[in-house]
Amino acid sequence: MPRIQDNAKGERKEICVFSGQAHRALALEICEHLGIPLSPSVTRKFSNDNLYVQLQDSVREKDVFIIQPLTYPVSDNLVELLLLLDAARSASAGRVTAVIPYYSYSRSDKKDEPRISIAAKLIADLIHTAGANRVLTMTLHSPQVHGFFQMPVDHLSAHPVLAAFYRKKDLSNTVVVAPDMGHAKRAFAFARNLGVPVAAGAKKRLTDETVHIETIIGDVRGKRVILFDDEVATAGSVIEAVARLREMDVTDVSLCCTHGVFSGPAISRLLATPEIHEIVTTNTVPIPQEKRIKDMQVLSVAPLFAEAIHRIHTGQSMTTLFEY
Amino acid sequence: MPRIQDNAKGERKEICVFSGQAHRALALEICEHLGIPLSPSVTRKFSNDNLYVQLQDSVREKDVFIIQPLTYPVSDNLVELLLLLDAARSASAGRVTAVIPYYSYSRSDKKDEPRISIAAKLIADLIHTAGANRVLTMTLHSPQVHGFFQMPVDHLSAHPVLAAFYRKKDLSNTVVVAPDMGHAKRAFAFARNLGVPVAAGAKKRLTDETVHIETIIGDVRGKRVILFDDEVATAGSVIEAVARLREMDVTDVSLCCTHGVFSGPAISRLLATPEIHEIVTTNTVPIPQEKRIKDMQVLSVAPLFAEAIHRIHTGQSMTTLFEY
Amino acid sequence: MPRIQDNAKGERKEICVFSGQAHRALALEICEHLGIPLSPSVTRKFSNDNLYVQLQDSVREKDVFIIQPLTYPVSDNLVELLLLLDAARSASAGRVTAVIPYYSYSRSDKKDEPRISIAAKLIADLIHTAGANRVLTMTLHSPQVHGFFQMPVDHLSAHPVLAAFYRKKDLSNTVVVAPDMGHAKRAFAFARNLGVPVAAGAKKRLTDETVHIETIIGDVRGKRVILFDDEVATAGSVIEAVARLREMDVTDVSLCCTHGVFSGPAISRLLATPEIHEIVTTNTVPIPQEKRIKDMQVLSVAPLFAEAIHRIHTGQSMTTLFEY
Amino acid sequence: MPRIQDNAKGERKEICVFSGQAHRALALEICEHLGIPLSPSVTRKFSNDNLYVQLQDSVREKDVFIIQPLTYPVSDNLVELLLLLDAARSASAGRVTAVIPYYSYSRSDKKDEPRISIAAKLIADLIHTAGANRVLTMTLHSPQVHGFFQMPVDHLSAHPVLAAFYRKKDLSNTVVVAPDMGHAKRAFAFARNLGVPVAAGAKKRLTDETVHIETIIGDVRGKRVILFDDEVATAGSVIEAVARLREMDVTDVSLCCTHGVFSGPAISRLLATPEIHEIVTTNTVPIPQEKRIKDMQVLSVAPLFAEAIHRIHTGQSMTTLFEY
Amino acid sequence: MPRIQDNAKGERKEICVFSGQAHRALALEICEHLGIPLSPSVTRKFSNDNLYVQLQDSVREKDVFIIQPLTYPVSDNLVELLLLLDAARSASAGRVTAVIPYYSYSRSDKKDEPRISIAAKLIADLIHTAGANRVLTMTLHSPQVHGFFQMPVDHLSAHPVLAAFYRKKDLSNTVVVAPDMGHAKRAFAFARNLGVPVAAGAKKRLTDETVHIETIIGDVRGKRVILFDDEVATAGSVIEAVARLREMDVTDVSLCCTHGVFSGPAISRLLATPEIHEIVTTNTVPIPQEKRIKDMQVLSVAPLFAEAIHRIHTGQSMTTLFEY
Amino acid sequence: MPRIQDNAKGERKEICVFSGQAHRALALEICEHLGIPLSPSVTRKFSNDNLYVQLQDSVREKDVFIIQPLTYPVSDNLVELLLLLDAARSASAGRVTAVIPYYSYSRSDKKDEPRISIAAKLIADLIHTAGANRVLTMTLHSPQVHGFFQMPVDHLSAHPVLAAFYRKKDLSNTVVVAPDMGHAKRAFAFARNLGVPVAAGAKKRLTDETVHIETIIGDVRGKRVILFDDEVATAGSVIEAVARLREMDVTDVSLCCTHGVFSGPAISRLLATPEIHEIVTTNTVPIPQEKRIKDMQVLSVAPLFAEAIHRIHTGQSMTTLFEY
Repeated sequence: MPRIQDNAKGERKEICVFSGQAHRALALEICEHLGIPLSPSVTRKFSNDNLYVQLQDSVREKDVFIIQPLTYPVSDNLVELLLLLDAARSASAGRVTAVIPYYSYSRSDKKDEPRISIAAKLIADLIHTAGANRVLTMTLHSPQVHGFFQMPVDHLSAHPVLAAFYRKKDLSNTVVVAPDMGHAKRAFAFARNLGVPVAAGAKKRLTDETVHIETIIGDVRGKRVILFDDEVATAGSVIEAVARLREMDVTDVSLCCTHGVFSGPAISRLLATPEIHEIVTTNTVPIPQEKRIKDMQVLSVAPLFAEAIHRIHTGQSMTTLFEY
Repeated sequence: MPRIQDNAKGERKEICVFSGQAHRALALEICEHLGIPLSPSVTRKFSNDNLYVQLQDSVREKDVFIIQPLTYPVSDNLVELLLLLDAARSASAGRVTAVIPYYSYSRSDKKDEPRISIAAKLIADLIHTAGANRVLTMTLHSPQVHGFFQMPVDHLSAHPVLAAFYRKKDLSNTVVVAPDMGHAKRAFAFARNLGVPVAAGAKKRLTDETVHIETIIGDVRGKRVILFDDEVATAGSVIEAVARLREMDVTDVSLCCTHGVFSGPAISRLLATPEIHEIVTTNTVPIPQEKRIKDMQVLSVAPLFAEAIHRIHTGQSMTTLFEY
Repeated sequence: MPRIQDNAKGERKEICVFSGQAHRALALEICEHLGIPLSPSVTRKFSNDNLYVQLQDSVREKDVFIIQPLTYPVSDNLVELLLLLDAARSASAGRVTAVIPYYSYSRSDKKDEPRISIAAKLIADLIHTAGANRVLTMTLHSPQVHGFFQMPVDHLSAHPVLAAFYRKKDLSNTVVVAPDMGHAKRAFAFARNLGVPVAAGAKKRLTDETVHIETIIGDVRGKRVILFDDEVATAGSVIEAVARLREMDVTDVSLCCTHGVFSGPAISRLLATPEIHEIVTTNTVPIPQEKRIKDMQVLSVAPLFAEAIHRIHTGQSMTTLFEY
Repeated sequence: MPRIQDNAKGERKEICVFSGQAHRALALEICEHLGIPLSPSVTRKFSNDNLYVQLQDSVREKDVFIIQPLTYPVSDNLVELLLLLDAARSASAGRVTAVIPYYSYSRSDKKDEPRISIAAKLIADLIHTAGANRVLTMTLHSPQVHGFFQMPVDHLSAHPVLAAFYRKKDLSNTVVVAPDMGHAKRAFAFARNLGVPVAAGAKKRLTDETVHIETIIGDVRGKRVILFDDEVATAGSVIEAVARLREMDVTDVSLCCTHGVFSGPAISRLLATPEIHEIVTTNTVPIPQEKRIKDMQVLSVAPLFAEAIHRIHTGQSMTTLFEY
Repeated sequence: MPRIQDNAKGERKEICVFSGQAHRALALEICEHLGIPLSPSVTRKFSNDNLYVQLQDSVREKDVFIIQPLTYPVSDNLVELLLLLDAARSASAGRVTAVIPYYSYSRSDKKDEPRISIAAKLIADLIHTAGANRVLTMTLHSPQVHGFFQMPVDHLSAHPVLAAFYRKKDLSNTVVVAPDMGHAKRAFAFARNLGVPVAAGAKKRLTDETVHIETIIGDVRGKRVILFDDEVATAGSVIEAVARLREMDVTDVSLCCTHGVFSGPAISRLLATPEIHEIVTTNTVPIPQEKRIKDMQVLSVAPLFAEAIHRIHTGQSMTTLFEY
Repeated sequence: MPRIQDNAKGERKEICVFSGQAHRALALEICEHLGIPLSPSVTRKFSNDNLYVQLQDSVREKDVFIIQPLTYPVSDNLVELLLLLDAARSASAGRVTAVIPYYSYSRSDKKDEPRISIAAKLIADLIHTAGANRVLTMTLHSPQVHGFFQMPVDHLSAHPVLAAFYRKKDLSNTVVVAPDMGHAKRAFAFARNLGVPVAAGAKKRLTDETVHIETIIGDVRGKRVILFDDEVATAGSVIEAVARLREMDVTDVSLCCTHGVFSGPAISRLLATPEIHEIVTTNTVPIPQEKRIKDMQVLSVAPLFAEAIHRIHTGQSMTTLFEY
C-alpha cells in the first residue's frame, strides 16, 4: 500500500482525514493504510439534543476527507456528517471529500409511490449544500444514484474483494442467485467474473420487512448457491429466497453482501436457516461481535478506500478501481 | 375525455400548447383531445445552421406546454426544445411544462465506462437551465432518471394502453419475456398485470448495436411469448432473444414496446424473423408508414397525455395515471 | 378565531396542514383553531434505519404547511421535516411553509470557537434545499437568525401570551431578571411591557451544561423576580441565577420561558430549588405530564400559529403578530 | 511559439487538449503549435440518434481544453461540446476551458422580435451548466456577448492576422467598407489600424437570407474596397453591398471576414460577382477545398489560439492578445 | 389611459407602486395615469451613512412595482433600489418589478479595456440577487444589455413619443445624424420611421469626457439636422458632431435624446452652440428647471410606463409597446 | 512582522493587494507590513455618475486582496468594492478576498420593524454575487453577522490592540461600561480580559440619532469608567450614558471603540462632555486630523490585517487571531 507523499511536482496540499462517530474503527484502519494519523475532532450533543462538532486540527487549504457511513443511528450520523462538512468548508479547507462507504439512502432512488421523497436525491443535495466538493462511496443500490450528486463521485465496488474470497474456493456445481430480478445485473456480472451461472428471484415487496419471492428463475436444482445482494438488513429477502431454493433441493447456501446491516430480526432469522452455512460481507458498516455468527467473514474494504483516497489526493486515475 | 375548463374557483390561467418539429401529429392529436387549437410557432434555420424559434401567440402569464419527443434528429430537436422553453420563459409565461413523450437520453443513466457523461442527468439540467418549470414524460429507461430532474416530473406509463390491448386476446400458455434481466422489473409487473408468468434474458452488451443474450432464464419452452421492452431501436436485443427462444421451441412471438424507434437495420431484421408475428407499440415517436410492417399496432398515447395536461393545468391529483 | 375561507376575490388555493412526529398534539390544536382536519401522512423507519415519509392527500397546487418543532430526537425530526418538504415540493404543492415552533439550532448562531459549524445557518440552508418556500417560527435565540434563511420568515413571539398571563397578577415590587446579559434585550422589552424594572446576570459559560453567573447586575434585593429566558434546557443558568438571587435575599422566583425543553437534570434541579414557586412556559415543544411540576403553566401558542397560518394563507399583513 | 512547460514555481497541472468532431484539423494544428499531442476521445451516435462521448485519457486534476467551433451541423456540435465538458468535469478535471473559435449563436444577441430566445445568452448558460470554467473564443458578433457568459471569457480577435495580410499590400486609394452601419465600429478600428478611411452600408434585413442595402454612407466612388465583416454566410449582404458599390464605380473589392461560413448560395454568388477579386478569411471554421474559390486566402488562427491556451495554462497576462 | 382593474377572471393580486428618492415626480405621474396612489415608504441615512428603507404599506402577496431611474447620485439610488427590492421580497410580496426608466450602467456593456467590470452585467446580477422578479426599462444603450438580466425584461422605447413630436413638424431637407457610427442602427430606424435619410459620425473616444469625431459619413451638407442619441451627458459628442456639421454648412440642429442627463459642462456647452436651436428629450431622469434651456421639450414617458405596468399587472401582451 | 514568501512547498500563487478609494492610507500601511507595494488601480466617475474601475496590474491566477472599509460615502464605496471584485474575477484572479475593516451595514442585522431589509444580509449577498471568494473583516456589530456570508469569513477583533493599550495603565477602581445591555457580552469579555468589573446601560432607541438610557445596571458609583462600544457614530449613546454616569458621581470616562466613525454632531458633543478625558479607537476608518480631539489615540490595526492576509495567503491557521 503506497504511503501518502507529494506527487512528482511537489504541489499537493496536505491531506487530513476526519471521522464522525459512525465507524471510527474503519477510519482508523484506512488511516493506518495511508500512514497518517486520524485527525482529532469532537462531537457531542447539547442539552437540547442539538449536535455539536469541532475539528481540532487546522484544515486551512488542506485536502480534507471525512469518513462517515450512514449506519445506525442514520439521522444522527447524517446530521453529524453535514456539520463536519460545513465546519471544514467554513474553516477554509482546500477541498472536502465526503467518504460514505455505505450510503443507506441509495435504496430510496425512485418514486414508486405517490407523494414520497426520492430521498437518495434529497440527501445528495443536502451533502452538496453542506459543502462537500466530492463524494467517495461504495456499491450504491442502483448505479443511477451516481447521477443524483451534483459533484464528482468516485463509486467503488467491493466485488474484487468478495470475488477474491470465493476464487480461493471450489466453485464447481455453484450458481450465483440474486434474490431480486430487478437488481440481477450485478449478480450476473459477479457470476461471470467467477465463471459460474446465474439465477434470480421474482420478488414482490409486500412491506419494508416482508417480501414474497414467487419463484427462482433459472436452473438451481441441487446446486450450491452463492446468494448475492448489495445489502442485507432484516434478511427478509434472504429467508424467502432460501425457502424457494429449499424447494429446489438446495442445501448449501453462502450468503454474500457488501453492506452487512443485519438489523432487527436478521441475526435470529439467519441462525434459524441451516442452509446458510456461511456469511461473507465487508466492514462498510460496523458489525459488532455478537452479530458475527456462523464464522462470518468480514472482509476489509479499508485498503480499497485508502488506495482511492491516495489517488484522489495525488490526482491519479482511478479507472482501475471502478466497476464497469 | 374532459374539455379544458376553469376549475371550481375560476382561477386558472389560460392554457396554451406549442409543438416543436419532432412530432406535430402527436401534438395535434393531444390538442384535439383537449379541445383547444395548437398554438402557432415558427422554427427555421439561419444560413449558418443556427436554429431560430418564435412563439406566435402571446404567452404572458399563460400555462404553457411544449411538446417535443427527443426523436431523430435528436440534437436539433433538443436544441429546438431548449429555445422554445427559453422563449416562453422570457416572454413571461406563467408556467412552462416540457412535454417529452420519449426522453431518448434516459438510457445514458449511469457511469458504466470511465470519463463519459451521465447524459440523462446533463440533459435534464439543460432543460432546467432553459426554463422548464415541470416535465411530463413517459416510460423513462430506468425509474431513477426521475430523480435527475431538478423540477417536478410527472412520469406516465404506457402500460395501461398496452395491457388493454393484450387483455382482449387469448393469453393462455403465454409468457412475458424481458430481453434484459437488468430491466426485468417492469416486465414482471406487466406480466403480473396480465396474469401470466415472466422470464428474462441474461444479456451482455458487446457494442451499442451488438448484444449477446447467453440464455433465457425462466420457463418458456413451447410457449407463446410477449417480448417486452421499453424501447426498440436497432432490434439487436430482440433478434438475439428470439434466437434463444427459437432454441427453446418458441414459434409465436408478439413484440411489445413503448418507444418504437426502429432505427437502422431494425425493419429488415424484424421482417427476417418469422417468429415475430405481431408488433405492438405506441406513438411516442413518429412511425412513418413504411416502417409499419406486419400490421403493426401503433396505439395512441395522446388521450393519456391530454388527460395528464388537463390535470396539471387544473391542479388535480395524477396518482391514478402513474405506474407504481 | 377566524375560519379558513377564500379571500374576497376567491383566488386562494386550498390550504392543507401536515405534521411530522415531533409534536402532533400542537398540530392538531392548530388545525382545530383553523377549522380544518390535519392531513394524513405516514412516517416510518426502514429496516436500515432510513426514514420514509408519505403524504396521504393530494397536495397538487395546494398551500401546504408542515408543522415540526426541532425537539427530541432532533436529528430524526429534522430529517423527517426535510423529507416531508421534499415530498410536498415534488408532488407539485403550490407553496410549502415549514412551521417550526422551536428552531433548536438557533442557539448555534455564531462562530465562538474555531472550526465549528454555524449550525443555525447550515440547517436553514438545508431547509431551503429541501424545498421550503417560507418559514414560520417563534422566538429564535437571537433575532439575527432570521437573516440566515434564504426565504421569507415570519418570526412570531410568545411574549404577548406570556405577558397576558403576568398582567393578571400583582406585579408590585417585581423585577424581570435575564440570566445572561448578552441576551437581555428581550427581557428589557418584556419588563417595559409589564411596567417593571429589569436586571441581568453576568454569565460565563463553562461547558454546555455548566455555566457560572458571577453576579446579577441591577437592583433585585428583596424583590419578587420573574426569571426570564427564551429556552430552558438543563436549567443550569436558572439554578446559577437563583443562587445569586438568593444571596440578594430573593425568595420568590417565577420562571418564565418560551421553549420549555427541560432536558437531563432540569426537573430534579427545579424541584430542588424552593425559590422557584412557579413555572410559566408554552407548548412549542411537547411537555409530558411527568415534567409538569410545581403546577407548571403551559400556555398554548396554537391560537397564535393558527392566526399566522390563516394570514399567510389569505395574504393579510402580519405586522401586528410580530415582536419589534 | 513557446512550448508548454511548467512555470517558474513548477506548480502547473498538466495540460490536455481534446477536440470534438467540428474541426479536428484546427485542433491538431493548435496542438502542433503547443508541442503536445491531441488527447484521444471517441464520439459516436447510438442507434436512437443519442450522442455518446468518451475521453480516452485520464483528466483527473488536469488543465483541460476542449476545441469545438459551432459550425455545421451546429446542434450536433453543440451537444457534443456539452457532453465533452460534462465528461471532463465529472472525471475530476482540474479546470475545463471551452475553446469555441466560432460561436455561431453570437448573432442571436438581442430581442428584436417578440417571443424569441436571446439564444446567445441561452447557449452561454448551457455551456456553464455543462461545466465549463472558462471560455476562449474569437470575434463575437457583438462585443456585448462577452457579458452573457457567467464565467471568465478570453475574447480573441483575428484582426492582427487579417491586418498583417493587408499591410503587405498597396493600400493607396483604398477604403474599408462595412456592409452594416450597426456593426461598423470594428471596421472603423480596422481601417484606422491600416491607415485608410471607412464607409458603411445602411442595411435593412428583410429575411435571414435577403437584406437590402439602401446606400453606402461615406466616400467610396472609384476607390478600391476592402469589404469587411465578421462572418460571411450566404453572402447576401456582400452581394448587396457590391451592387451599391458598383453603382459608385467601384470595380475592385477584396472581401475580408473572420468567420468564412460560406453556406447555401454563397459560393455561386461570389463566383458570379466579378468585382470581388479576392477573399481573405481564417480557419475558425473548416473550409473544404471546393469552397476555396478565387485563390481564397485562409489565414490560420491556430498560432493565436495556441498562444492564448499557453498563457491561460501558465497564468500569464493576455492583454496583448485582445482587441480593445 | 386604462384604469387598473381586475381582469376577466378576477384573479389579479392587488397592485402597489413604490418610488425611491431618484425621481418621485415621475412615479407620481405614472400613478396618476394608473389611477392609484403612490404607496408610502421611508428612506433615510443612518449616522454612519448607511441607507435605511421601510415600505409603509403591507405588500404581502401584492404585485409590487418599484420605480427608480439610476440618476445622480447613482450609487445611493442603486443601493436604495436594492434595499427596496429586498424589503419587498422579504415582506412576502407576490411579485416585484424593478422599474428603471434610465439604466445608467447600460453604457458599461463590454470589455473594451483589460481588467474592468462589465458593470451593466454586474448591476443586473445585483438586482437579481436583491429579489427583482422582472425589470421594466427604457432604451438601453445597446439592445444586447437585455440579455444581461436573468429575469424577464420589458424593454420600452421612447421613439414613438419622440417621433410623434417631430412628425408634427416640417421635415423637408432634414437628415437624422447619429454622432457614433457604432450606435447608428437606432438612428437609422428612427430616420426611416420619419421618412428622412441618415448620416453618422466616425467617432473616436479619447476619454470619458473628450471624444473626437473625425468626420460625418453621409450627405448632410446644407441640411437641417436632427442630432439623435440615446443619452446626452456632458454633450461632448454633441459638440464635436456639431463642429463637423458646421464645416458642412449645417446651421440648424435639433438635438434629440431619450435620457437627458446634461451633467457637468453640458448646459454651458449647449448654450454656447448656436446651431442647436432646439432640445427634445424625455423625463426618464429629473431635469431641474435651470437646465431647461432653449425652450427644451421634456416629453413625458409616464403614459408609456403606466400602460406597460398595467399590461404587466393584467397579463396582457406588450408587443405593441416594444421597439423591434 | 513576516514578509510574504512562498510556503515550504513553493506552491503559492503571487499575492496582490488593491485598495478602493475608502481608506488608501490603511491599505498602504498594510502593504508596508507585508513588504509588498500596493497594486495600482484607477477609479473614476463617468459623466453620468456611473463608477468606473480598472485594475492596472495583471491578476491572472493571483491571490488578490481588495481593501475597502464601508465608510463615508458608503454607497459609492460599496459599489466601487463590487466593481473591483467583479473586475478581479473576470480578469481570472485565482482567488479574491474582500478586506472590509469596517462593515458598516452589520448594524442592520435583524428585522426589528416591518418591511425593512436585513441589509447586513443583503450586502453580504451582493459581495458574494460580485465574486468575492472570502471576506476578512473586523468586529462586526453582532457575531451572528458572520453567518450572513455565503463564503468563508475571517472575523478579526481589535480587542487585543485595545486591551494592550489599557493594560499599560492603572486600572484600579475601574469598571467597563457597555452603553447597551443588548451588546454587553463583548464588554463583559473585555472587562474580564482586563480583570475589572462590568456594567451596562438599559437603552431604548428613540430614533437613529436619539436614544434614551434609562439607567446603568451594575455598580459604577464613583468609579473610573471605560465606556466601551464597537462603533461610535453620532455619539448619542455615549452622551446619554455619560449623563447617567454623571448622576452616579462618575467623573472620569475613557471612551473606547473599534470603529471611530464620529459623524454628524459627534465631535461637538464629545467636546462638550468634560467627563470624557480620553478617546481610544483604531484606524478601521479614516479619521481626519480635525476629528482627533482630546489627544485621541488612534491605534493601528494594520499589523493585524497584514498578519491575517499573510496567513490566508500562506494557508496558516488563524485561530490565534480570532476572538472567541
